[in-house]
Amino acid sequence: MPKIVDHDERRLELVDATWRIIARLGIEGATMREIALEAGFANGALKPYFPTKDTLLTFAFGHVFNRTNERIGEVTAGKTGIPALRAFCVEVLPLDSERVSEARIVIPFWQKAINDPEKAAIHRESMEQWHAAILEYLAQAREYGTVSAAVDDAAVAGHLLNMLLGAQIAAALAPEGQVDPGLSEQLEAFLTLLEAKN
Amino acid sequence: MPKIVDHDERRLELVDATWRIIARLGIEGATMREIALEAGFANGALKPYFPTKDTLLTFAFGHVFNRTNERIGEVTAGKTGIPALRAFCVEVLPLDSERVSEARIVIPFWQKAINDPEKAAIHRESMEQWHAAILEYLAQAREYGTVSAAVDDAAVAGHLLNMLLGAQIAAALAPEGQVDPGLSEQLEAFLTLLEAKN
Repeated sequence: MPKIVDHDERRLELVDATWRIIARLGIEGATMREIALEAGFANGALKPYFPTKDTLLTFAFGHVFNRTNERIGEVTAGKTGIPALRAFCVEVLPLDSERVSEARIVIPFWQKAINDPEKAAIHRESMEQWHAAILEYLAQAREYGTVSAAVDDAAVAGHLLNMLLGAQIAAALAPEGQVDPGLSEQLEAFLTLLEAKN
Repeated sequence: MPKIVDHDERRLELVDATWRIIARLGIEGATMREIALEAGFANGALKPYFPTKDTLLTFAFGHVFNRTNERIGEVTAGKTGIPALRAFCVEVLPLDSERVSEARIVIPFWQKAINDPEKAAIHRESMEQWHAAILEYLAQAREYGTVSAAVDDAAVAGHLLNMLLGAQIAAALAPEGQVDPGLSEQLEAFLTLLEAKN
């Protein structure tokens, strides 16, 4: 019987190899040859999956985003309002080494997106999705009376989203071995301000 | 008389050329040859100023940081507390095309810093300097009674700093022609939360 190749599975293997290589060598060092070697592929065998490093990076970004969303789905299940917002943010913040690795994929993607309108659009669509989620949590919190501040929720959501993006940079550039540069405390301080009663 | 060459001046010319090239071609396209061409230098003439693209990028980052700090010095002159904090943030936020161009220098620097401890340390030192400035504005605001929220100022300052970093990404990846993706409103919403009275 011919060996059945699960192409999705192999793509994910390549993404994992890409991660390890980027973590070790940086995005410039992550050549297709290095990635193939790391994943145990022959050099030319990557081409059918990812014709260029660029397509691989875009796929890896999408994979990080989807995986984060899966985790968000799990941690926010059954929650609404501020508890849901907190769980969402805690999941997006790079609070462990796995998520710091993800930040190391996402930052090179942003850098490429500066001169690549298609990548920039992918980023913006992801952010719009998260912005809508935050807005919904805020609307629930207002309904419950846990949030009553006289501020525009869209602006608050945009602000928080930018903080979550900046946190990826802070974590990726933290000193070796330091995983969380105070990000949990920053989130809690913000939620305290948000929940304050006038 | 021999022509007097102002080396600092020439370095800044090169930084300006680097900017224009990065804006046009992205960091990968910004070869030393392209930068020399743009600045009107002979190909080898860059070497005495910047032996590598890397040294040029680090210098450009330092230049953006110093220039931002000069502008901060001007706009915060004579201000303290929340007015100073607002002026500081407005200056750091990429609210015009010049500062969006600066974000386009800073993001590639961050990306390089992921695998370059020296660059990461430069980033962290810059952020510590800004963190200290924000803390001072917050202490003044507490003294004046304009801020009385029961939150840790160091966490608030870290949160705000991360928002300012994330804003660079939001602006650099905004659709062509859109300069401010709502960043001013986000800042105002945050300051409203910060100033709320319990």
